[in-house]
Amino acid sequence: MEIAVEKQSVKIHPFEGVKDFEIRTASKLVKDAYPSTANVHFVQIDKIDPPKKDMLRYLEAEKHGAPLPNIPRVLYCYYYTNTHEFNKALVNVSIGHIITKVKQPQGVVGPFLPEDMLEMEILCNEHPVVKAEIEKLKLPKGYTVRNDPWIYATDDPNEKRLLVQNFMYVLAGNGHTESNHYSLPLKFSPVFDALTKTFIRMDYLPGGFDATTTPTTPWQEVPCVEYHPDLNGEVLSRDVKPLLVNQPEGPSFTCDRGKVKWQGWEFQVAPNAREGFAVYNASFKGRQVFYRVSLSEMTVPYGDPRAPYHRKQAFDLGDCGFGVNGNKLHLGCDCLGVIQYLDGYGIHANGEPYVIPNTVCMHEQDNGILYKHVNYRTDNAVVARKREFVVQTIATVANYEYIINFKFVTDGSIDIEVRATGILSTMPIDENVTVPWGTIVGPNVMAAYHQHILSFRIDPSVDGHKNSVIYEDTHKLPKDELNPFGIGFVTQKTFVEKAGFVEQSPFTNRSYKIINENVINPISKTPVGYKIGIPAKQMLLADPDSYNSKRAAFATQQLWVTKYSDEQMYAAGEFTNQSQYDTGLGVWANGEDNVRNEDVLVWATMGFTHIPRVEDFPVMPVETHTIHITPNNFFDKNPALDLPQANNTFNKSVLANSTSGEKACCKTNL
Amino acid sequence: MEIAVEKQSVKIHPFEGVKDFEIRTASKLVKDAYPSTANVHFVQIDKIDPPKKDMLRYLEAEKHGAPLPNIPRVLYCYYYTNTHEFNKALVNVSIGHIITKVKQPQGVVGPFLPEDMLEMEILCNEHPVVKAEIEKLKLPKGYTVRNDPWIYATDDPNEKRLLVQNFMYVLAGNGHTESNHYSLPLKFSPVFDALTKTFIRMDYLPGGFDATTTPTTPWQEVPCVEYHPDLNGEVLSRDVKPLLVNQPEGPSFTCDRGKVKWQGWEFQVAPNAREGFAVYNASFKGRQVFYRVSLSEMTVPYGDPRAPYHRKQAFDLGDCGFGVNGNKLHLGCDCLGVIQYLDGYGIHANGEPYVIPNTVCMHEQDNGILYKHVNYRTDNAVVARKREFVVQTIATVANYEYIINFKFVTDGSIDIEVRATGILSTMPIDENVTVPWGTIVGPNVMAAYHQHILSFRIDPSVDGHKNSVIYEDTHKLPKDELNPFGIGFVTQKTFVEKAGFVEQSPFTNRSYKIINENVINPISKTPVGYKIGIPAKQMLLADPDSYNSKRAAFATQQLWVTKYSDEQMYAAGEFTNQSQYDTGLGVWANGEDNVRNEDVLVWATMGFTHIPRVEDFPVMPVETHTIHITPNNFFDKNPALDLPQANNTFNKSVLANSTSGEKACCKTNL
Repeated sequence: MEIAVEKQSVKIHPFEGVKDFEIRTASKLVKDAYPSTANVHFVQIDKIDPPKKDMLRYLEAEKHGAPLPNIPRVLYCYYYTNTHEFNKALVNVSIGHIITKVKQPQGVVGPFLPEDMLEMEILCNEHPVVKAEIEKLKLPKGYTVRNDPWIYATDDPNEKRLLVQNFMYVLAGNGHTESNHYSLPLKFSPVFDALTKTFIRMDYLPGGFDATTTPTTPWQEVPCVEYHPDLNGEVLSRDVKPLLVNQPEGPSFTCDRGKVKWQGWEFQVAPNAREGFAVYNASFKGRQVFYRVSLSEMTVPYGDPRAPYHRKQAFDLGDCGFGVNGNKLHLGCDCLGVIQYLDGYGIHANGEPYVIPNTVCMHEQDNGILYKHVNYRTDNAVVARKREFVVQTIATVANYEYIINFKFVTDGSIDIEVRATGILSTMPIDENVTVPWGTIVGPNVMAAYHQHILSFRIDPSVDGHKNSVIYEDTHKLPKDELNPFGIGFVTQKTFVEKAGFVEQSPFTNRSYKIINENVINPISKTPVGYKIGIPAKQMLLADPDSYNSKRAAFATQQLWVTKYSDEQMYAAGEFTNQSQYDTGLGVWANGEDNVRNEDVLVWATMGFTHIPRVEDFPVMPVETHTIHITPNNFFDKNPALDLPQANNTFNKSVLANSTSGEKACCKTNL
Repeated sequence: MEIAVEKQSVKIHPFEGVKDFEIRTASKLVKDAYPSTANVHFVQIDKIDPPKKDMLRYLEAEKHGAPLPNIPRVLYCYYYTNTHEFNKALVNVSIGHIITKVKQPQGVVGPFLPEDMLEMEILCNEHPVVKAEIEKLKLPKGYTVRNDPWIYATDDPNEKRLLVQNFMYVLAGNGHTESNHYSLPLKFSPVFDALTKTFIRMDYLPGGFDATTTPTTPWQEVPCVEYHPDLNGEVLSRDVKPLLVNQPEGPSFTCDRGKVKWQGWEFQVAPNAREGFAVYNASFKGRQVFYRVSLSEMTVPYGDPRAPYHRKQAFDLGDCGFGVNGNKLHLGCDCLGVIQYLDGYGIHANGEPYVIPNTVCMHEQDNGILYKHVNYRTDNAVVARKREFVVQTIATVANYEYIINFKFVTDGSIDIEVRATGILSTMPIDENVTVPWGTIVGPNVMAAYHQHILSFRIDPSVDGHKNSVIYEDTHKLPKDELNPFGIGFVTQKTFVEKAGFVEQSPFTNRSYKIINENVINPISKTPVGYKIGIPAKQMLLADPDSYNSKRAAFATQQLWVTKYSDEQMYAAGEFTNQSQYDTGLGVWANGEDNVRNEDVLVWATMGFTHIPRVEDFPVMPVETHTIHITPNNFFDKNPALDLPQANNTFNKSVLANSTSGEKACCKTNL
């Protein structure tokens, strides 16, 4: 079956993100393939990447101005039919036909659609059983309830339904929509079947040290810790003067439909539904570095062992989608300077697309000194500023916000920065109780210890697609004739030969490098490479035989290497919602595939254990973690020597006393 | 003996840095105490801090507007007499008398005076033996030599002289003062007695795999890898457009003789000769946090075991001084925006002071988002920007540059950031040779692996001066009735009871906290505290019985706690130059002093092993490491809620297409 396809598609680059008409084409084709009684209910539609072997031909042709191969645009559709059957279709929207449509096994469920969650909140709050429970609270006048429908996660291998755990909160009676209900958690939590919309059972939440629960009683009024400026009671007493980033000659970058050129860097940025965005085909100074880089998965397991909290393990990409929960970014709020935005797309259950405007922002920023040297004999200084190009997206996953920044630097390095902010996921706690797995962050409100463990999928092309991964340790030399004073140390390189993981080893200064054994640096006489620097961190704490571990093998180790496959996209597998086990790295890192001098994938795990502090409430100052990706014997010298020297004719900084009009201070009169 | 003291001194705050007239007073008093034949030769003069017990009375009086106690200003003077006798004097410059002057034991030597190093270079290059050796090089016309006099360090317990190891380099014949001699190291290295100015011996440097050396032969011409824009052959092809930081209403801070007030923070910044600067009496929102924080020492041991490289272990503070080697910072080069500078002082050998202008710069900067939350029900965002106040100094220690940034943040946190840049210390290497302890970074030039290990001395006053240090580990719970699914985890706190160190333990998520057991946070019901976050790193690699380790016990562990003492200022001890053993933490962390609920000192070690890459040459893009110091259950909620919300009326950002005049790109027309 084929339908008419709009003309524009011929101009779309294969790396560009999905277009609205493509979503419409795909959803129409899928809906038309079922009787109307099937009630096709979409939950996610997006483009899949073209097969890499095709794309390499395309990129080669593009580079040489040769005729471009025809690469069809293919979309995936996740949808339910007949209420509870979960399906995946692949649709060629270039020619307009369904490639496959497959009903998934019972128990495999898809990600939640954001609007389904909003609907679930209303369904829950209006359900008679829940209303009866709310009634027992005898809330003060004007007070109501809110609930956050939560990923149910896993504790029963026989569970095949798509369940939702609704965490209930009091909404204070101030009549303000932005009141912080997370400050006032309730001690009952209804569970619903998200597909049949039926009430399953009422869970009660413990308030003391152990798992003991109590029936609902009238709510004990406590102050709500508010974050919104209208409500938080703060006097804006700080005299923060404007600090403006001006670029009078415009930005140093160009962006054409997501294709960025900046300071020797070239790459394509494309927003997507699941990952937020991906960066394709990145090169610096004409040399390939990466074929594709993106966030691939994140799991957030909580450490409170008491039911039903033992199931709190979110997979924020697989269960919900980072892109579809992406913020609409605003000028002067989310970044400063001259800003380039990209739009993303979400879908409605009927398959209609909607724009998520400005979901990715891109801008330049100054980050201090890049390099400096002063010749002490002459006092002459050489100094260049560190300019960065930032690709940023922010996802709101219910209570939490995640800010993902890819920072491309003028010296050929890339920093992947994650900032966790937003609001802690809170639990009720009785007066005068403390628990060893959580921090009391407000009156009768506790924030459980948890972990954020993210996997970044790095598809390298360091001077080509045949790459190897090594790890390098620094060891002391034995004390002997060569090293009589016991001060010598050397490095030892180990190749990752088979698909698997590398253990962390900060005390041997272990570093991971992606190298190309076929290209030797003429200076160092070693293979060219890029280094992946990840801070040493505690990985997943859960027992190896727990569901938390089985579902997220990726979260147990810091670095994984697998042989390239078009299908291996998501670290915990394609379908994580209520998964019983991992279908990602736990399967692919099989110890069998050769990964030396092959087309490889590198998976970098960034983990951090979050022990909440009172200061993280009611809204959390960012906790920031960074992966540094740096050229390592890739260039034949510092590749930033061609930057202009920093000087004040260019940078126009001023003395504090000359602008403030105050007298010069801190100056000694000799 | 007393002399007239200038009037200004009465107005000087005890925390302010040394003044020129104080240096003159001190050096005159010292010189007058000796016969002129003693040839007093000063190498360092600076202020010492007042006794803390006196200062606490002073600060208390100051706070309440009471009459201020009289705190004399006391300077220390390091100087040689009769050529080789090393002395230390303490001089009360408020009343003008010498408190003590003590001849140090033979073998104890002081830091080098920068001008003595310049003189040493000339002495060496003009010495007949050296000239004869240079002659053998048969350098091309126009080519000359340079040498970097290096800290001799230690390998002989009987060595009592102050020796200098001169590393020799070819200066290319381009006639340019900024030519990079580090690219052209030579294979001989004269040793001189720095005090008697006598030639001691000629060391020859190995060029092959082992320690074998060869006599000097004619120099094999190789290209010089240049960094200076006049010489490096780069075309400035990058079109970097200006990015200006404008503060039209002036800065948000005030600075009165180094006393800074900014966004709830109050503290005194004072440059000094040894540490660069120190920050005193820091409080946030009226609550004490630190009495004093500074860099205390840095050691840089090299891993090349071959003589004479086995002695390469610099102590950049104790051997040279960070402040006296501080850069003169320039507008638009070293930081952007509205800049406040502070001057430092160096001295000449005759005791005369000179100004090091602008050696500390201070400014505000934006660092992205501080916190954000979006209510997904209403799409309302709350977002505040992260504004930082940066105190920066940069020291040039021969080849290397170190950038030290203390960043005070609007949420009550402080980041201590170190950026290493400058030029690698290089060694000659023969063609077609590789070594396991170094990287070839240019033709016939090798950069040995080395470590940079810094100690920051933190004198806390978290809600008062009686503080305790704990470390907190995160452990999984046993799988049992309470934790049937094996997902629970909890924290375990351990008090540091006695002066000593805490081992690193990243895989238990170990965190260090300075707490005040006498002040309980009303929300969390735990002691108020500040957390010290240091990335897990390899510490000193040298054998425990090597000189490298014995001289720098501080470098073997990440966190040390000692009982407060006015005398315990420098992690490796007061005199590090050619030291045989540590007189710092190795002595003070004695396992005996009680440090619980006492006035304590916390010493944070930031270490990194530097395996040079070709890209680090000829000038190194910054390698950045950070210690995060954050309030931890100190406040009763996020202390930055009183910041104004980010908005574009204030921040005035613009769309890329509106300034560049290009058509809107990356926008889909729906």
